[in-house]
Amino acid sequence: MSIADRLKELDIILPTPPKPVAAYVPCVQSGQLVFVSGQLPFAGKELLAEGLVPSRIPIDQAQAAAQQCILNGLAVVNAHLQGDLNRISRVVRIGVFVQSDSSFHDQALVANGASEFLENIFGDAGKHARAAVGVNALPLNAAVEIELLFEIQ
Amino acid sequence: MSIADRLKELDIILPTPPKPVAAYVPCVQSGQLVFVSGQLPFAGKELLAEGLVPSRIPIDQAQAAAQQCILNGLAVVNAHLQGDLNRISRVVRIGVFVQSDSSFHDQALVANGASEFLENIFGDAGKHARAAVGVNALPLNAAVEIELLFEIQ
Amino acid sequence: MSIADRLKELDIILPTPPKPVAAYVPCVQSGQLVFVSGQLPFAGKELLAEGLVPSRIPIDQAQAAAQQCILNGLAVVNAHLQGDLNRISRVVRIGVFVQSDSSFHDQALVANGASEFLENIFGDAGKHARAAVGVNALPLNAAVEIELLFEIQ
Repeated sequence: MSIADRLKELDIILPTPPKPVAAYVPCVQSGQLVFVSGQLPFAGKELLAEGLVPSRIPIDQAQAAAQQCILNGLAVVNAHLQGDLNRISRVVRIGVFVQSDSSFHDQALVANGASEFLENIFGDAGKHARAAVGVNALPLNAAVEIELLFEIQ
Repeated sequence: MSIADRLKELDIILPTPPKPVAAYVPCVQSGQLVFVSGQLPFAGKELLAEGLVPSRIPIDQAQAAAQQCILNGLAVVNAHLQGDLNRISRVVRIGVFVQSDSSFHDQALVANGASEFLENIFGDAGKHARAAVGVNALPLNAAVEIELLFEIQ
Repeated sequence: MSIADRLKELDIILPTPPKPVAAYVPCVQSGQLVFVSGQLPFAGKELLAEGLVPSRIPIDQAQAAAQQCILNGLAVVNAHLQGDLNRISRVVRIGVFVQSDSSFHDQALVANGASEFLENIFGDAGKHARAAVGVNALPLNAAVEIELLFEIQ
């Protein structure tokens, strides 16, 4: 099944790729690698989740925000590939930053909202390496920021 | 000398590769690059160091934890290479996250526990690029998390 | 115009590449990718900006520090390329860590000090992917740390 068909089956509609909030580009390809800039959980013009996890944003909402970051990253790479997501041969790595209370240590649970979403869409090709950490502050007060690295063919 | 022999000479026994604490894989290869997921300082099922550096974990223990993260990363890539660590042509990069008191600024010293260990094992091929930063929170309250990037042949 | 000429036109003199503050190397090349270690805003032996942004370092000074990190990263890759910066075919990615007050969420503005500088020097080849986050602590109390990834030919 094509990735486009799989997205339909999952009722996933890719958003318009978010524009970078500053002086950089959404992604850069070098060889077979596509580096996607850190994505925030924008849904349209609004952030899905703002503030510290979990005191302001509970874990389940942070997981949904992580999924939204991935959705936006897929929109970016989809535009780069002119709509042919089947050229993605592997999700190589994601870097997950969770705006965390200092006492919060379940960043892995939050990041699973991203990881499980990728595996659900891409199957084995969606299984990726990952680094997930907590930070005290993120741009625009986003609860989560995720960068992605794809291998394409 | 083979890397396996060098490990014996250093009395280093690679542990069982830690399983990811969540929905991702220990490493992904793309071309000649192997991206290893962020490693925590597990020694068996226990973390070697939990809490902030240095108020809870002094620098020397944080350095030992950084070394343990590298040991676990080597176990991961060793399994990926089916035991042939000689295929590693270069340690390319490590990313070091130290769970830090806000007043702590010796993350480089902590990361040296990882860097010197790699150079001791691999010699010139172990000399790597590095980013080391402090963060306010890490998964499972680990004192250190390290991701690794290898070039293999 | 060559990059060397462009630097002259901009009155930019590359500094002596800063030595790593610890046991690693300034950069590692693998294939066409050059991974540059996390750069601090050293100007000579002094850091241009120390402390939290913005309570200790205002945004404009943090932007200047971000630019200094890039300058140091360029000095590193220039030495690696034995002075031939024209071999840089693309700035692929930068990772920007801003030592931030927890209430500060304009890391993107700070990182623009780096991004706009790269685009000013390299033009389209300077347009990069980027991840910018806040952290509570950085080595040597630097206000900003930036790592860089270049594609060379």
